[in-house]
Amino acid sequence: MRFHKYHGAGNDFVMLLDPDGRLGLPSSLPPALVAALCDRHTGIGADGVIRIMADADALAAGAALRMDYYNADGSTAEMCGNGIRCLAVLARSQGLIGDGEHTILTLAGPTPIRFEDDGRVTVDMGRPRDLREAVTVDLGDASIEGTTVSMGNPHLVLFDRPLDEVLTLGPRLEVHPDFPSKTNVEFAEVLGPRELRMRVWERGIGETQACGSGACAVAVVAAALGRTEPTVTIHLPGGDLEIARGDDGRVWMTGPAEEAFEGTIGAAWLRARGLSSERAIA
Amino acid sequence: MRFHKYHGAGNDFVMLLDPDGRLGLPSSLPPALVAALCDRHTGIGADGVIRIMADADALAAGAALRMDYYNADGSTAEMCGNGIRCLAVLARSQGLIGDGEHTILTLAGPTPIRFEDDGRVTVDMGRPRDLREAVTVDLGDASIEGTTVSMGNPHLVLFDRPLDEVLTLGPRLEVHPDFPSKTNVEFAEVLGPRELRMRVWERGIGETQACGSGACAVAVVAAALGRTEPTVTIHLPGGDLEIARGDDGRVWMTGPAEEAFEGTIGAAWLRARGLSSERAIA
Repeated sequence: MRFHKYHGAGNDFVMLLDPDGRLGLPSSLPPALVAALCDRHTGIGADGVIRIMADADALAAGAALRMDYYNADGSTAEMCGNGIRCLAVLARSQGLIGDGEHTILTLAGPTPIRFEDDGRVTVDMGRPRDLREAVTVDLGDASIEGTTVSMGNPHLVLFDRPLDEVLTLGPRLEVHPDFPSKTNVEFAEVLGPRELRMRVWERGIGETQACGSGACAVAVVAAALGRTEPTVTIHLPGGDLEIARGDDGRVWMTGPAEEAFEGTIGAAWLRARGLSSERAIA
Repeated sequence: MRFHKYHGAGNDFVMLLDPDGRLGLPSSLPPALVAALCDRHTGIGADGVIRIMADADALAAGAALRMDYYNADGSTAEMCGNGIRCLAVLARSQGLIGDGEHTILTLAGPTPIRFEDDGRVTVDMGRPRDLREAVTVDLGDASIEGTTVSMGNPHLVLFDRPLDEVLTLGPRLEVHPDFPSKTNVEFAEVLGPRELRMRVWERGIGETQACGSGACAVAVVAAALGRTEPTVTIHLPGGDLEIARGDDGRVWMTGPAEEAFEGTIGAAWLRARGLSSERAIA
């Protein structure tokens, strides 16, 4: 089974090109296959798996392609801002789409993307919702004040704290009873009116190199608090993301996507995991 | 640049097949290249890089092949028991060697290996040296008693402690002043006269899925203390290794090696890291 390996600002993905369904994969990838592919020692290793499809659903939605996204544990996610940039660059390199603007169907709905002249990709990340300032979280031995906002998923944005607290406070805040669906936690530092630095603790994963929706949440909150202008560059451990705000309130994220390598996973490897395959997963 | 990705009990390696020097690589791989290849998010991701050569040095030593081994940080290591099994299986799959017994040249000298009928590979791990029982290490808030032994590299083997202390005591013992060259630390539990379980803190790396010399150290110490027979199966987080003792005192390790995938790393990826390449690294 052939695959490509991409990353966007260090957020990395196994990419399965399957526009014509020729891989013979089931409509939903088995969680065991996704988890085995994402294993960083015995598999390919990745934060997630993205299958690129061009099926009737995509066409009906007026989209060129469909993004099927799976977290490393095999669960699905509605959208992935870093992943959709990788999908766009790979699809263009294969001639599936050209330059300019396109719509990609995700579980969150049709998602506009645009190729920039410098090779980066801009993604419509939607509208923020439910922004609440001065939220206080009681940890018992500490009281933490921050801002909550939803980018489709929940975020808690903290300023004025050491960024390396992401490792100590991140896991405690993620699962605090105040957040019944758990939360992503961003530690952000303003460097200038259009520049921030951040580290992020992702819900269910831990610290990651980059989180697209987390970067959007930080930009939205920083602007709402009057700490920055609406358009900012954010430095994450894995690279930079640029976040802008449309007149209609939508958030646009611009960032890189790079192919690391392409490869073939062997039939013996699949068989050893109970995943029989010709070129398919039966 | 083509590569293969293998693992032996979860200890994983980027393998560069270069028997005829055709990859055009310099005699020693640039540390920046090795580190970039081993990056688990933006590169291929591995514990180390193994280059398989068949040069004049190997022939002069009566060896079929030479193993050039690099740690993920670009430094070289004399030998790697899990890595040499991967080298053997890949070399056989490519027709470079056949079944049976062979000698592989490593920085530690000519190293005998043998293919088992069940697909596993047995490696001569050499003779243990300097075994010292009842060594006490003073950590200030705790006094730890264990056994030290060298398998070419230093080991401190601890019994009768919770194995998950590897995460808390491992990093402290590794760099304790009693070990001027630092030490690997093994936490081992006897399950039966021929069976143990262990976790290992590797010097300069942290906890790993498996450590070949560490498994040998545990088997040698367990037998010396009368806790097990000389031949044992050891369960590591990444898989099982079987350790036996020859009449001459040499330690033989038998274990698996599996190809995860093969692939090609692109010229653009190399160029972006200042590593220009046709198929070579110039």
